[in-house]
Amino acid sequence: MTGDARDAEFLREAIRLAREKMEAGLGGPFGALVVRDGTVLSRGWNQVTSARDPTAHAEITAIRAACQALGHFELRGCVIYTSCEPCPMCLGAIYWARPARVVYASTRHDAAAIGFDDEFIYREVPLPPAERTLAFVHLPSEEARAVFRAWQEKPDKVRY
Amino acid sequence: MTGDARDAEFLREAIRLAREKMEAGLGGPFGALVVRDGTVLSRGWNQVTSARDPTAHAEITAIRAACQALGHFELRGCVIYTSCEPCPMCLGAIYWARPARVVYASTRHDAAAIGFDDEFIYREVPLPPAERTLAFVHLPSEEARAVFRAWQEKPDKVRY
Repeated sequence: MTGDARDAEFLREAIRLAREKMEAGLGGPFGALVVRDGTVLSRGWNQVTSARDPTAHAEITAIRAACQALGHFELRGCVIYTSCEPCPMCLGAIYWARPARVVYASTRHDAAAIGFDDEFIYREVPLPPAERTLAFVHLPSEEARAVFRAWQEKPDKVRY
Repeated sequence: MTGDARDAEFLREAIRLAREKMEAGLGGPFGALVVRDGTVLSRGWNQVTSARDPTAHAEITAIRAACQALGHFELRGCVIYTSCEPCPMCLGAIYWARPARVVYASTRHDAAAIGFDDEFIYREVPLPPAERTLAFVHLPSEEARAVFRAWQEKPDKVRY
């Protein structure tokens, strides 16, 4: 089977998960898979309302489970399949996890059309903090700067 | 004590947590608090390398713990204090959690100066998926569209 055919197959599994878990009442209609070398490392689905956790999006739960399976905080060489374009939170998580690729089906605009805030949050992220809809207060701190200096000088730090 | 003085006090506690947990070897130099009506609901700190979880930033862990404490997936009326400006992942999580305000000390530029990718990810988020450094593949799917329609028509859905 070609790479493209396998992409479609894994994406279909993420979409199937989205439907199954939504129908089970666990959360919004989103599913995700983390795959490495053609093997599924983890499956995730939206659990925001059932787990009472606003961070429990499909991609976040799949990334966390894949990292537990690998015993590492990165997913180098992995592919993330998600039934919908990641929201900014999940996009940030994906960058931190450093997979090789992301494959998605629906878009942020499709998500907005059924009532999700993804598109709104995408508009807020690039704004200077003081210009956002949500109130951001900046209180610069010499103590905070000192903690960053301590990190720089820490000899046994684990970078990520 | 004035509101501003309390802001400085809670922020100092977030910075203190950042230092303490970094020195304990748990992760990067970041701490956060969720506060409601002057009461601390939760404390979070970076646990990426110790928990092997790329999503375990200070704000994410604080938000998850506060939601567990409240038994709800939103943090309406709460204030999030964080030792550093949130990265895009944490910013997205904050929007989904819907607190009243965010108070922060160091900035994304300070974080970049000590080796963290926050500023890089901020530049990537607004780009069209096909123009990002990370490979994004869009495979539109009629099955995915059908799942979104099923969500719209679901009579007992819990919105978030």
